[in-house]
Amino acid sequence: MSKQIFVLNGPNLNLLGTREPEIYGVLKLDDIEIRLKKLAKGLGIEVDFRQTNQEGDLVDWVHEAGAKNAAIILNAGAYTHTSIALMDALMAVESDCIEVHLSNIFKREDFRHHSYVSKASLGIISGLGAKGYDLALLALNDSIS
Amino acid sequence: MSKQIFVLNGPNLNLLGTREPEIYGVLKLDDIEIRLKKLAKGLGIEVDFRQTNQEGDLVDWVHEAGAKNAAIILNAGAYTHTSIALMDALMAVESDCIEVHLSNIFKREDFRHHSYVSKASLGIISGLGAKGYDLALLALNDSIS
Amino acid sequence: MSKQIFVLNGPNLNLLGTREPEIYGVLKLDDIEIRLKKLAKGLGIEVDFRQTNQEGDLVDWVHEAGAKNAAIILNAGAYTHTSIALMDALMAVESDCIEVHLSNIFKREDFRHHSYVSKASLGIISGLGAKGYDLALLALNDSIS
Amino acid sequence: MSKQIFVLNGPNLNLLGTREPEIYGVLKLDDIEIRLKKLAKGLGIEVDFRQTNQEGDLVDWVHEAGAKNAAIILNAGAYTHTSIALMDALMAVESDCIEVHLSNIFKREDFRHHSYVSKASLGIISGLGAKGYDLALLALNDSIS
Amino acid sequence: MSKQIFVLNGPNLNLLGTREPEIYGVLKLDDIEIRLKKLAKGLGIEVDFRQTNQEGDLVDWVHEAGAKNAAIILNAGAYTHTSIALMDALMAVESDCIEVHLSNIFKREDFRHHSYVSKASLGIISGLGAKGYDLALLALNDSIS
Amino acid sequence: MSKQIFVLNGPNLNLLGTREPEIYGVLKLDDIEIRLKKLAKGLGIEVDFRQTNQEGDLVDWVHEAGAKNAAIILNAGAYTHTSIALMDALMAVESDCIEVHLSNIFKREDFRHHSYVSKASLGIISGLGAKGYDLALLALNDSIS
Amino acid sequence: MSKQIFVLNGPNLNLLGTREPEIYGVLKLDDIEIRLKKLAKGLGIEVDFRQTNQEGDLVDWVHEAGAKNAAIILNAGAYTHTSIALMDALMAVESDCIEVHLSNIFKREDFRHHSYVSKASLGIISGLGAKGYDLALLALNDSIS
Amino acid sequence: MSKQIFVLNGPNLNLLGTREPEIYGVLKLDDIEIRLKKLAKGLGIEVDFRQTNQEGDLVDWVHEAGAKNAAIILNAGAYTHTSIALMDALMAVESDCIEVHLSNIFKREDFRHHSYVSKASLGIISGLGAKGYDLALLALNDSIS
Amino acid sequence: MSKQIFVLNGPNLNLLGTREPEIYGVLKLDDIEIRLKKLAKGLGIEVDFRQTNQEGDLVDWVHEAGAKNAAIILNAGAYTHTSIALMDALMAVESDCIEVHLSNIFKREDFRHHSYVSKASLGIISGLGAKGYDLALLALNDSIS
Amino acid sequence: MSKQIFVLNGPNLNLLGTREPEIYGVLKLDDIEIRLKKLAKGLGIEVDFRQTNQEGDLVDWVHEAGAKNAAIILNAGAYTHTSIALMDALMAVESDCIEVHLSNIFKREDFRHHSYVSKASLGIISGLGAKGYDLALLALNDSIS
Amino acid sequence: MSKQIFVLNGPNLNLLGTREPEIYGVLKLDDIEIRLKKLAKGLGIEVDFRQTNQEGDLVDWVHEAGAKNAAIILNAGAYTHTSIALMDALMAVESDCIEVHLSNIFKREDFRHHSYVSKASLGIISGLGAKGYDLALLALNDSIS
Amino acid sequence: MSKQIFVLNGPNLNLLGTREPEIYGVLKLDDIEIRLKKLAKGLGIEVDFRQTNQEGDLVDWVHEAGAKNAAIILNAGAYTHTSIALMDALMAVESDCIEVHLSNIFKREDFRHHSYVSKASLGIISGLGAKGYDLALLALNDSIS
Repeated sequence: MSKQIFVLNGPNLNLLGTREPEIYGVLKLDDIEIRLKKLAKGLGIEVDFRQTNQEGDLVDWVHEAGAKNAAIILNAGAYTHTSIALMDALMAVESDCIEVHLSNIFKREDFRHHSYVSKASLGIISGLGAKGYDLALLALNDSIS
Repeated sequence: MSKQIFVLNGPNLNLLGTREPEIYGVLKLDDIEIRLKKLAKGLGIEVDFRQTNQEGDLVDWVHEAGAKNAAIILNAGAYTHTSIALMDALMAVESDCIEVHLSNIFKREDFRHHSYVSKASLGIISGLGAKGYDLALLALNDSIS
Repeated sequence: MSKQIFVLNGPNLNLLGTREPEIYGVLKLDDIEIRLKKLAKGLGIEVDFRQTNQEGDLVDWVHEAGAKNAAIILNAGAYTHTSIALMDALMAVESDCIEVHLSNIFKREDFRHHSYVSKASLGIISGLGAKGYDLALLALNDSIS
Repeated sequence: MSKQIFVLNGPNLNLLGTREPEIYGVLKLDDIEIRLKKLAKGLGIEVDFRQTNQEGDLVDWVHEAGAKNAAIILNAGAYTHTSIALMDALMAVESDCIEVHLSNIFKREDFRHHSYVSKASLGIISGLGAKGYDLALLALNDSIS
Repeated sequence: MSKQIFVLNGPNLNLLGTREPEIYGVLKLDDIEIRLKKLAKGLGIEVDFRQTNQEGDLVDWVHEAGAKNAAIILNAGAYTHTSIALMDALMAVESDCIEVHLSNIFKREDFRHHSYVSKASLGIISGLGAKGYDLALLALNDSIS
Repeated sequence: MSKQIFVLNGPNLNLLGTREPEIYGVLKLDDIEIRLKKLAKGLGIEVDFRQTNQEGDLVDWVHEAGAKNAAIILNAGAYTHTSIALMDALMAVESDCIEVHLSNIFKREDFRHHSYVSKASLGIISGLGAKGYDLALLALNDSIS
Repeated sequence: MSKQIFVLNGPNLNLLGTREPEIYGVLKLDDIEIRLKKLAKGLGIEVDFRQTNQEGDLVDWVHEAGAKNAAIILNAGAYTHTSIALMDALMAVESDCIEVHLSNIFKREDFRHHSYVSKASLGIISGLGAKGYDLALLALNDSIS
Repeated sequence: MSKQIFVLNGPNLNLLGTREPEIYGVLKLDDIEIRLKKLAKGLGIEVDFRQTNQEGDLVDWVHEAGAKNAAIILNAGAYTHTSIALMDALMAVESDCIEVHLSNIFKREDFRHHSYVSKASLGIISGLGAKGYDLALLALNDSIS
Repeated sequence: MSKQIFVLNGPNLNLLGTREPEIYGVLKLDDIEIRLKKLAKGLGIEVDFRQTNQEGDLVDWVHEAGAKNAAIILNAGAYTHTSIALMDALMAVESDCIEVHLSNIFKREDFRHHSYVSKASLGIISGLGAKGYDLALLALNDSIS
Repeated sequence: MSKQIFVLNGPNLNLLGTREPEIYGVLKLDDIEIRLKKLAKGLGIEVDFRQTNQEGDLVDWVHEAGAKNAAIILNAGAYTHTSIALMDALMAVESDCIEVHLSNIFKREDFRHHSYVSKASLGIISGLGAKGYDLALLALNDSIS
Repeated sequence: MSKQIFVLNGPNLNLLGTREPEIYGVLKLDDIEIRLKKLAKGLGIEVDFRQTNQEGDLVDWVHEAGAKNAAIILNAGAYTHTSIALMDALMAVESDCIEVHLSNIFKREDFRHHSYVSKASLGIISGLGAKGYDLALLALNDSIS
Repeated sequence: MSKQIFVLNGPNLNLLGTREPEIYGVLKLDDIEIRLKKLAKGLGIEVDFRQTNQEGDLVDWVHEAGAKNAAIILNAGAYTHTSIALMDALMAVESDCIEVHLSNIFKREDFRHHSYVSKASLGIISGLGAKGYDLALLALNDSIS
């Protein structure tokens, strides 16, 4: 049985590449997905890569990951800072989760310094661009089976 | 014409029974629904019992309850603390609403001590587990017809 | 041996019925006591119903309830918001306690939104008027013997 | 090619006319749409007028406006105050946006004084009722083509 | 029937004259009582002058004043700043109340700048020493009968 | 009798056109006055257009507007954020007032996000440049006679 | 040489009698002046009674009172809450000052609970209407000569 | 004449030994009294050891200690954090006071980190269990006579 | 053409020498002016030295300095802490400004620790008494011509 | 094997006796050391008494105490309030620690009321002067061996 | 020329392996160094690995890294949260820096949620244990040469 | 005997000239020293000019200055904002101290607006670049001997 990781992307990440590239970089979300899947394949990991602008969809998908014992890489975008529902979802399942942000959220506006997601995650990787997804995958590689 | 009550459940409540049972108890949401409907039947009340992880669905359903002159028992989960939209929906309709929480939210993290829902509800029952739904039903029994 | 519940009422509740009836209702405290004792009798519960304007009396009575293994229904009035002593008393005994408020304290002034009593109670029923006492009795009915 | 403006309405605005008319006025949302489209027609502007109770839909529609180079008139209702996702969406596109509120949000509860939407808008018109939509249209008339 | 005014003094005022005289003056509480009663007599007012160190006693006495339709001059001492119970008592009765402080509480520590008593009083006289009691009596002279 | 509107401009607005044009635009205050009076003339409205750097002058002029039953368009500049006196003046008269700001004050420093003027105004138009004055005139057009 | 007291009134007090009479009463400022001067005459006190809407005028007048060794009764209106300049003026002179407010500022909006004037005054009389001026005169009667 | 020290204990300390022993230890208050009196006897000090759940009693007893020139060891329990009245009492007398807490209040909930009593005490001993009383006695031994 | 510097002094500085000399020193404002002009003369600088108690006058004078390309030494007194209007005036002109305070405002009350003037000044000299004016002149000497 | 206690003193304590003696007393640090060692000798305890102005030295010494199983008496001076590093050091070792302050830090400036050291100590003795060291030694006497 | 990276470790990290292993893991700092250097060798990177308990040493070492154009992996321990000096050092040099924490600091005490270091770093990796150092090395691998 | 002044420079000031020159200017610290010593020589003042990145060194040097009765010019860099130890050191000695900053710290990040050093200094000169050192020397010139 192959290992499985859900990579869940939140609001506005569908615009990557065009959206404020000086902050978020020039890669499109598709580019990140392709790159990450290539890395995952080499590690024998199956990646389920999704994006949504709905808070509730992220909650649903975390539940789904929990049901499938999949680990989670979560870039919840703006919901990182406002969604207790998403934090509760992560606490309700047993999946390991690593929080990823393309930009260094701690160098930006004050309201981006607080993360509900962090309270229910193993750890956080922020500010390392698309490479952050790769590092998260490597970090989870040990703890999934 | 039978009396009608909407019982609206918010995010993550679909995981009841498996989700942090030391906080939320071992009953599943279905169990609560069955138990509550039995009590309601004896009182001649029709219960419409729903769950969603989407904030906007709760808003829609409150509107629907308002249109049907149904009273509301609302366990909004995490949206309790963050959703002004839900508070506004309750204020926009004339339905009586009682806020219910399985756990005692005032013994938990600080961000769970504030409820937007409370500002638009008759009252609150918190910390009494699944029995809180029953008590809310009894409390509404006088004010619906 | 019959079951026993202390119903403890704090400051200004002796004026119920005349005090700001648009907030607190028209029932007098005696009316609430009579109604509640009738319900309790049917459940085989003995109710000890008291009121005081002194913070220290509430502390004493909580100790007494603890010594008698009686459960507690506590409407601490204004001391709800200011008395750490009362919270400590509840924590010092093993009696179950349910916090009751006639009005919905979360729709009132900010300083009424915080409750020390909540931190030492099973749960809270607020905003359901005199009926809140009855519901608290029903809620405690399972957990006393 | 005719000019295009998206008029996006957030949660509970579908209840306009019945919802707390002393705050929001007696016009229904349909009335506002009809009136605005008449004004727009005279200015050679095409208006796409929508309402939703879902935060994510507003994010989607802002993206759509961006893709079509349409300007935006946005009454985000309660999401005005809580949605960083919506602010991010507006920042991610190049469409001009004017924020509109029927009531004067600065005379209401404290939590309505803060707007995430404002941080990504040209300007705000608040408290001028349905006429605010018309004024926003006039204001955008110069900057679209 | 002669007019009646309750003059209620809170904690530590029994030590007047010896207690920090640079703040509170050299008059004893008895001196203030004698002086005030002389003034009251000339105005045909009966003064009931009391002191206590117990918060609950002040609540009781406010109730008693309410029952007798007596106006109240209240120097609640430290309970001014901490007693919601006392504020509630004043709100529960129909007696006019004037808040008096010997020292100017607004020139002292921050925690003395807030008064719960003020929220339930006609007005406040602070910093004018024992003369403040006389002025309060004169102020109430019109409104009692 | 022709309709009358006072257009009151606060501190530093006399420097418009030269003062930080990237924020406030290149129009001089005279230009705005001329443009606005042309629009007003067409609507049969008499405009009294003034500027001052003194807080007290704004208070005086609001009183004068009140005495003449004139509506008010008020750009109070920095006094927007600090002058309770000006808010009180607006509350003391029966004139309708619309608050106007050239820049979007909600995108600027935190201390510009709070407006005392808003609490005594019908509404606010902010961030739409000199055009904001025109829109305010149109908005008041219905309510003056 | 007769004793002298400056009675200084701040912004918007010139509108007394017409301005929000439910808060400020129906007496005009002239009425208060006449009444107060009659009382003063009986006490052999000369009253200099003034009103201004300019913060700086109040500062000037306090200086003038200081130069003439006159005591001060000060109703600084809204400048009470915002003017450090006025506080500094009072501290710079040796005149005794009593702060007067017609309404009970502690029952009103939060921003009216803080007074810079208090920090430089003997005491405060608030909420006793026009009578507050009379009481302040009586209070100062002993300390001037 | 023998030296005298009042040892005053506040709310819930009568339950010592049974109350949350992991926090407060297993000694009863009587045990502490006996131990302390033995130590005191050796030092020629007379100890008056009392406990109450009423805030006002502590105020009274501090006054009594002041009248007898007795030093004070004060464990005010929860009133430590809420009683300005008690702080004022200590300031009103000339007795030296040492504040004692069984637990280290600075390692507990935030609301236990603030002490009004500290502001009127020589010093504080916290977290050293029943031994803290003994140390306080030793500390006061020099300063009483 | 000689160099020009405006030295602008705010409220209460006209009382220097008599006003709280332990804080502000014994020099009168005239003394400071004379001393400073002597120093300026040696440097070939023309000093325009003014004082006012009106906030708006300071705004006007800053505008005047801007129009004359004069640098500014500004001791805004209490308006330092409250006047956004003054800060805006400084930002609206291109004159260099150095903020001067006689006392060290950072050792005084908290409300004197914040300066709006600082945000629009080159720098600040505080606590060095009248000599601060001289140092400011020396500092500006390089940057004016 | 003799018992060992590290007595660690932080910044500025090397100036004891000359430094603000009205706050810190007239004893030099050497005097305290001599006195304490005499007491320790009688108890069979070896005292290692040190002082440093470097935060990192305190961290090192705590590590050293941990390695030697020595208990700690810690007067960290100003680092008490700012050093998370020191708190972490105490948490990293198993040594018992008692926090000592010569002055009563809770009667001084607000920034001295918070102690990071407290969160990692058994208890605190504050305000009892040099005697506080002796009392700490007595308190530790039972728990070391 | 081989690439160079400074790996700088702050206070208490010398105790790794023994210090609260449930938080920080069981690896010693030496183990981490060995593992990291092996990885670095494969990438052709030279690692300079250091630890100190002195804030100033970290500042010095950051300067040294800057002088050598070395990138930085920085686990500043407790100084992360308190050291503006360290942040300034990072801003003063041109070296890329990645902040690493063994534990997830956002799940711990509030005072650990703020990082001065973040404001001067490319990004942060927190909560991934010793592996975080490896990931940081991989992340820096692209940007150094 | 010649006069002596210690000029103490804190963290990162050794990088002056290369460190963010748009903020701190292009002069190196050596340049400032040379310039200042030339000025000092003319005034008959001996300057001891030092720099350190260690908080404790600054404390030591302040002590040394105190022992030598030398005045102090202190640019504590980042320790300005965080070091209570340094403030305490300044308070412990009798040396006059003037605080100097190259940049105007009040125009920068919020955490740079607070200075512990200010509370123990005669005054502050901020924002006037390297010239600030010269001005401080001139200011101290009178008070040293």
